[in-house]
Amino acid sequence: MTDTNASLSFDTLHNPTFLQACMRQATPHTPVWLMRQAGRYLPEYVATRAKAGSFMGLATNRDYATEVTLQPLARYPLDAAILFSDILTVPDAMGLGLSFAQGEGPRFAHPIKTEADVAKLEVPDMAKLQYVFDAVSSIRKALTQDGKGRVPLIGFSGSPWTLACYMVEGKGSDDYRLVKTMLYSRPDLMHKMLAINADAVAAYLNAQIDAGAQAVMIFDSWGGVLADGAFHQFSLAYTVRVLAQLKRFGSDGKIVPRLVFTKGGGQWLQDMKALDCEVLGLDWTVNLENARALVGGTVDGPGKALQGNIDPNVLFAPPAAIGAEAAKVLDSFGTPFQGAGTGPTHIFNLGHGISQYTPPENVAALVAAVHSHSRKLRI
Amino acid sequence: MTDTNASLSFDTLHNPTFLQACMRQATPHTPVWLMRQAGRYLPEYVATRAKAGSFMGLATNRDYATEVTLQPLARYPLDAAILFSDILTVPDAMGLGLSFAQGEGPRFAHPIKTEADVAKLEVPDMAKLQYVFDAVSSIRKALTQDGKGRVPLIGFSGSPWTLACYMVEGKGSDDYRLVKTMLYSRPDLMHKMLAINADAVAAYLNAQIDAGAQAVMIFDSWGGVLADGAFHQFSLAYTVRVLAQLKRFGSDGKIVPRLVFTKGGGQWLQDMKALDCEVLGLDWTVNLENARALVGGTVDGPGKALQGNIDPNVLFAPPAAIGAEAAKVLDSFGTPFQGAGTGPTHIFNLGHGISQYTPPENVAALVAAVHSHSRKLRI
Repeated sequence: MTDTNASLSFDTLHNPTFLQACMRQATPHTPVWLMRQAGRYLPEYVATRAKAGSFMGLATNRDYATEVTLQPLARYPLDAAILFSDILTVPDAMGLGLSFAQGEGPRFAHPIKTEADVAKLEVPDMAKLQYVFDAVSSIRKALTQDGKGRVPLIGFSGSPWTLACYMVEGKGSDDYRLVKTMLYSRPDLMHKMLAINADAVAAYLNAQIDAGAQAVMIFDSWGGVLADGAFHQFSLAYTVRVLAQLKRFGSDGKIVPRLVFTKGGGQWLQDMKALDCEVLGLDWTVNLENARALVGGTVDGPGKALQGNIDPNVLFAPPAAIGAEAAKVLDSFGTPFQGAGTGPTHIFNLGHGISQYTPPENVAALVAAVHSHSRKLRI
Repeated sequence: MTDTNASLSFDTLHNPTFLQACMRQATPHTPVWLMRQAGRYLPEYVATRAKAGSFMGLATNRDYATEVTLQPLARYPLDAAILFSDILTVPDAMGLGLSFAQGEGPRFAHPIKTEADVAKLEVPDMAKLQYVFDAVSSIRKALTQDGKGRVPLIGFSGSPWTLACYMVEGKGSDDYRLVKTMLYSRPDLMHKMLAINADAVAAYLNAQIDAGAQAVMIFDSWGGVLADGAFHQFSLAYTVRVLAQLKRFGSDGKIVPRLVFTKGGGQWLQDMKALDCEVLGLDWTVNLENARALVGGTVDGPGKALQGNIDPNVLFAPPAAIGAEAAKVLDSFGTPFQGAGTGPTHIFNLGHGISQYTPPENVAALVAAVHSHSRKLRI
């Protein structure tokens, strides 16, 4: 029903570079956005959060979520916006009782400890997550300028495994002892939970797409803590299950690229090559030249766009050093595909979320360096 | 001066399997030892530590250090002993003031913050570490039975980079922000510190060898937090500098194998192939079949023995599951070299230190499974 050519031209955007690069199309510069770009390193974010009273107060209020999503775009010429939310909204909707204590990470009041807890789990009613979809619609509208979007809006979710880590541990963990104890002792329970998580994540991302998300990203933040083999069984297989259920087109008829980021997954790139998604996100340990050779594909052949992967701690160096490190990352990928058709492309990002201690002016230096150096790579 | 054939025959040991496997020689079973095998999961360790009053009280007392080193060998038929000590003894001897608060990790009273701090650093007088060398001699003696060693004794040190992480952060870190800020802002200072660390680590390991250590291991516990490229410049290059200075033979004329373990370094195995060491340690994310193909070498050709790599969290599963997971790891490496000469060999270990919450009886199940399954692999 969808005209494929029309679905692949992003003429409803002032700056379509991010979506073009996702689809391995040529762009005049390497698009850049930053994981957690709307966040605590920005004083205006801190001010809005104070107004909202709490993190969940912020995330569940459409207007606040819209405000903070747009804040980094007002400061920096970023090439994409990403929904302001948290990866743990889905287990919260499952009834686990999410809260964020001041100065601490997320915590669940009712973590999954027993077989009975797993038996009670089900895909939550998406109506409980309506606040997220409302935020998506609101942000998409706020991004519209002169009848076109300024930049595309990325929706996201945690991966089934990453959600399971928090659901079992009840909070962040150093050693993932509880969730791995379940995995190795009761793999049947773990598979049951992961299947439910996968179906919930798919429904959640599809609702974000319906609400206006123009790309969707799966954050497998804790995939890299798994052993070789266990990663494939307990994380990758359920990412596959999510991807198989995702809508391919938005309500505007445009294709919706799917991004998968496994922190610590660099060794398994070859295994992720077969994923039914457009973009693979990479952390800073990955050599982009090797990654491009392995999964970047060829001109007009299949392949993944690559996203990443500067160390967020580079942002604590002076601007000149930031520029030099950004150039190293861009050079490591090499000149992206240029011309008609498709070929290897790169989306610049951090290798993980930006630190709350980052000086905001250093982000400006990074974005400027990426844009200017990546233009030079195309001459 | 040393007769190479004599140096390679470990006839002064009742159980030479660990050293033989290090040298890529055939063994009747796959030798196994566990990182942090003398530790808090053992009630007898907790009792000795209580007598000693503190962790440093334990580590600096020759008799206590000997006692706890031997405790796991009394319980389990492990194929090697490892000196009980801490990787931070070297910076402590540099004057940084190490302490272990109850229930917390290590902490330095005087972390390295400024150029002036770095300027003051120097290779410490090894006399300040005499307590470590005394412990090595004492343990070696305690391991002697009927004029032969029961199993070999492994000495160790943190890598130059791993020491630098603690020296700059002053304690453990989630994000390595301070040390990476120095790395990216003042690489000159970082290189200066790493050169001093490397020379100190080499002197420290050589003194352990003189005191009786029969193998030495460099723990690059935090190498894997570095970006691609930065790892090579700031960690690997200084591991090379240590290795270049190490003694090759103990005072008994036997060769002293050198082991290098970079947690999170699986993507850089190809780059570690050129290291002048005998064994590469691997964490649980590494596929042993691939690692063997990449760096395990061929029969009578060059190559590295491989050490690792079961997830320590497997030890929270029931014994049958532990046995199955151990078999998976052994099978993943495949049948080790058998016969005369040298070829690919495997030393079984965890992919990281054992958890303090591990049930001691599960360790017995693991060691038994490794010995029995690895014998079957050789039939």
